[in-house]
Amino acid sequence: MNLLLLEEDDFVAADRALLRGRRLTHLHEVHRAAVGDQLRVGRLDGLMGRAILLRLEAGEAELTIELDQPPPAKLPLTLLLAVPRPKMLKRILQTVAAMGVEHLVLINSFRVEKSFWQTPFLAPEKIREQLILGLEQSRDTHLPHVTVEKRFKPFVEDRLPQLAAGTTALVAHPGPFPPCPRAIEGRVTLAIGPEGGWIPYEVEMLQAAGLTPVQLGERILRVETAVPALLARLF
Amino acid sequence: MNLLLLEEDDFVAADRALLRGRRLTHLHEVHRAAVGDQLRVGRLDGLMGRAILLRLEAGEAELTIELDQPPPAKLPLTLLLAVPRPKMLKRILQTVAAMGVEHLVLINSFRVEKSFWQTPFLAPEKIREQLILGLEQSRDTHLPHVTVEKRFKPFVEDRLPQLAAGTTALVAHPGPFPPCPRAIEGRVTLAIGPEGGWIPYEVEMLQAAGLTPVQLGERILRVETAVPALLARLF
Repeated sequence: MNLLLLEEDDFVAADRALLRGRRLTHLHEVHRAAVGDQLRVGRLDGLMGRAILLRLEAGEAELTIELDQPPPAKLPLTLLLAVPRPKMLKRILQTVAAMGVEHLVLINSFRVEKSFWQTPFLAPEKIREQLILGLEQSRDTHLPHVTVEKRFKPFVEDRLPQLAAGTTALVAHPGPFPPCPRAIEGRVTLAIGPEGGWIPYEVEMLQAAGLTPVQLGERILRVETAVPALLARLF
Repeated sequence: MNLLLLEEDDFVAADRALLRGRRLTHLHEVHRAAVGDQLRVGRLDGLMGRAILLRLEAGEAELTIELDQPPPAKLPLTLLLAVPRPKMLKRILQTVAAMGVEHLVLINSFRVEKSFWQTPFLAPEKIREQLILGLEQSRDTHLPHVTVEKRFKPFVEDRLPQLAAGTTALVAHPGPFPPCPRAIEGRVTLAIGPEGGWIPYEVEMLQAAGLTPVQLGERILRVETAVPALLARLF
């Protein structure tokens, strides 16, 4: 936790907040904080700044807050991601938030196991939990916008063309394609397939929606490695 | 497992191998392989190619092997990595092997918890297990060379200058440094610190050994995210 992220409900005045639960435990056990300590804080979807620890008890802490810095800019990116297996989903949600993705679309694909859709980690509040961990890690306050699309075809046919229009629109896919471009200016739409990759029909559908296939070399990377690798190359 | 990686001991003839244990279980349970199936195989530190499954039993499988393709080129990189926590170490070793790092130096740092050095995952055979999982993932046959340096100062003072000489030598560190360069030609030496980063004294020592500090933006990334991000940007 490199940033203590405060939510609306934590504030008892404009410059005063109370902490309980997970973040308080973290202050006690990891930060080993003491009264008078200065901490980096941010307000969810707001500014970042400093807090001074006024009071620290087993069950509650009180902070004075001064917020004056804007969070880092988001990546102007819509990331389409085939739903990964639950354990990987949690880590990827953290990575996506940490790296500053603006909009994440979790999408079905032929090679997504049906059981992955049953996971409790796809519930909005569970997704939000992981995104917040990512923001706390990287020091950001703005939650990515996450949408879940359980049906590939209607999304790709009916809505993706508008999302991709006017952006650098790419689908990452191993094969005889041009290498993924570097240091793109402007908005990007990027589709990353499941373990095992998109099936040819899906690549054709994504191409018809305006996405260009690009590859990242001969090596087959796990999705959780491919996501930071592709983002670091594109931006 | 996108590549079935065979070792010396698996071969019973130049073109014939027997499988048992983990890889056989994987053939049964994940690949659901059947006699006559063709599989992608590689020989550790050798060529890659195809195998035909001749015989498949509960406790053993027999394959004919034809090897004719070179593995992908390694990244001309010496990666110095402060020892991460055990759970992360396993994943990072897989990532390092999957991405094709040639030489990994696991090194001590002030912010590496002493307990991390007690983990059984630093034993050479445990490191090798994780590297092989990475090679199987990305389809490579050449193990990265891994060295473990428990003492920061003598390594950085006495041996790093020679390792770094004639390479693009960088230390990743948040701060007022130039951005990490892109698409480097030639050999690279890259140092990545622990969670919490290098301490200033360590950055000075690394600079004295010839490394230039570079940064990857305001966001603080976890080491397992920073590794693929930096590698994808550099190569």
